[in-house]
Amino acid sequence: MSVPSNDRFLRALRREPTDRPPVWIMRQAGRYLPEYRALRARAGSFLALCRTPEHACEAALQPLRRYPLDAAIVFSDILTIPDAMGLGLSFAEGEGPRLARPVRSAADIRALGVPDPDAELRYVLDAVSLLRREAGARTPVIGFAGSPWTLAVYMVEGRSGGDFARVHSLRKEAPAAFAQLLDVLAQAVAAHLRAQIEAGAHAVMVFDSWGGALAGDAYLRHSLAPTAQVMAALPDDVPRIVYARGGGAALAAVAATGCEAVGVDETVDLAAARRAVGDRCAVQGNLDPDCLRQEPAELRRAVRAVLDAYGAHPGHIFNLGRGIAPDIEPQQVAELVDEVRAHGANEEAAL
Amino acid sequence: MSVPSNDRFLRALRREPTDRPPVWIMRQAGRYLPEYRALRARAGSFLALCRTPEHACEAALQPLRRYPLDAAIVFSDILTIPDAMGLGLSFAEGEGPRLARPVRSAADIRALGVPDPDAELRYVLDAVSLLRREAGARTPVIGFAGSPWTLAVYMVEGRSGGDFARVHSLRKEAPAAFAQLLDVLAQAVAAHLRAQIEAGAHAVMVFDSWGGALAGDAYLRHSLAPTAQVMAALPDDVPRIVYARGGGAALAAVAATGCEAVGVDETVDLAAARRAVGDRCAVQGNLDPDCLRQEPAELRRAVRAVLDAYGAHPGHIFNLGRGIAPDIEPQQVAELVDEVRAHGANEEAAL
Repeated sequence: MSVPSNDRFLRALRREPTDRPPVWIMRQAGRYLPEYRALRARAGSFLALCRTPEHACEAALQPLRRYPLDAAIVFSDILTIPDAMGLGLSFAEGEGPRLARPVRSAADIRALGVPDPDAELRYVLDAVSLLRREAGARTPVIGFAGSPWTLAVYMVEGRSGGDFARVHSLRKEAPAAFAQLLDVLAQAVAAHLRAQIEAGAHAVMVFDSWGGALAGDAYLRHSLAPTAQVMAALPDDVPRIVYARGGGAALAAVAATGCEAVGVDETVDLAAARRAVGDRCAVQGNLDPDCLRQEPAELRRAVRAVLDAYGAHPGHIFNLGRGIAPDIEPQQVAELVDEVRAHGANEEAAL
Repeated sequence: MSVPSNDRFLRALRREPTDRPPVWIMRQAGRYLPEYRALRARAGSFLALCRTPEHACEAALQPLRRYPLDAAIVFSDILTIPDAMGLGLSFAEGEGPRLARPVRSAADIRALGVPDPDAELRYVLDAVSLLRREAGARTPVIGFAGSPWTLAVYMVEGRSGGDFARVHSLRKEAPAAFAQLLDVLAQAVAAHLRAQIEAGAHAVMVFDSWGGALAGDAYLRHSLAPTAQVMAALPDDVPRIVYARGGGAALAAVAATGCEAVGVDETVDLAAARRAVGDRCAVQGNLDPDCLRQEPAELRRAVRAVLDAYGAHPGHIFNLGRGIAPDIEPQQVAELVDEVRAHGANEEAAL
């Protein structure tokens, strides 16, 4: 009984025909919903919300109540793994994440171990199980983690929003230690995703949010190779999505990591993305989230342009190219979802 | 945004193609689930459960968490209307419903008024709204009521399980008063269903559980004609199901009431039912619930026989022929649903 009643998302991931493309929104739960802000206030903080499975499950359910979405993503954060490794995660009000004990040296890297998800990340697994119980019979549940490279960036920089100077310096000056860091992270990410699958996730997604900080060989070596290592350590029968932000120039290589779907950012043309990944992968994306600030008619035109760019064939999962901003009007998301359903159905009917 | 993400049920009701027949279970929530029995114990009684929207919503959600079902029916009772008319509904432990003040004379009938759903049946509407909020973006929500004839039987007999002697006597000896009773009930049923639609129901269903107590002209006059009156008073754009228990000999006439789907009991052959309703209606049914007592392999064979009897064309909603018994093992329902999904998908693939 593992297939939810709405299996459009899982079918699209396998490139099987669907009546229309499935749709969900990165990151689906969150600050653009007033009920989320109320929940976060009740929880006390973002981290308290993440760490209380009932609250995390409720946050993931909130958008499902508002919009007829085709997938539910567990509410968590990619920095749970660095936190479980002892780096001391916190969120300063109005700013991004901070790690109290960033990784700065080969010695720091040697001290890192692979966290046991059943112990240190139990709260994430409990949130997955609860979401699976509450929504999983109807809607597919997505587990996720950061990519090894993206986690390494945060762990070395200690915060987001920097210029990547420290991480580039470390990877160049201590290549062996940096390779060890990516290896430990690949093991940790694989273990965490496997545990989320065991807890009930129908699909998993790896967020490589900082792939764009690398180019050419460095991208292949530091971002894609460790991600391929993660893919190889996951079961074949649970679809895997790699979100390759900034990876538009190397989508064939992203597809070659072994994933079932490649998530692309808004800078990519979906027709080109589809050609690049060929028959190997589905494609997820890629509406520019700034379109959510336009008038509904404009927004709907932009949604249709994304659908038309991919074309009327199976294997497209509609999503944004990057995460939604907190000041977007919830009604705009309703317009987006409605247009995918209306125009997407027409596309598929033309098959 | 009124169409749920899983629209298989609504498409089948309109006889549009689906990847497989949708499935739900009469009566889906209820006594065969241990979590329901716990909820009822917490609520104190069946009526307290019905009258507390949060509890009623929870009862409707319970089966959706266990099984990948394609529709959710509001948790309520068909005797809420007679109760709202002042007849005094109660449930004796281990027995069926009782009405304290049954209708026995023309004077009793003249005293009846059409309840205002927004006032006397507010708790049902609140349960519909809450269920729509909790599940309706993903799963279609079904509102329901008894048919005028079935309600009249209960109102005259005062309880279930009798021999229909009083109601047959009244309809023959006081035909004008009895026609008035059916007319008041048709108005009350239509008003209640309209209010449930306004509260968020995606589809509505009229249960004519006692149609089998009538035959020939009496069935057309007392059961189907008032039901057609109800259909005519409902909006055309919300699908309407008429469950015609015991109506197997007159399915073309049931279809002619104006509904979008005819629910049939387990005594009917689905291929014949389909021929009888022609292109006008979808068909819902009709596994014999006794099959749920057989070994899983036998049960699955019976499920396939129902699917094969209807055949590989749109317009079939899989269901039981009558309500599930309280002593059925929950795992048996899982087997049923799984077989509909597995075999039903093969059927449609052969289109």
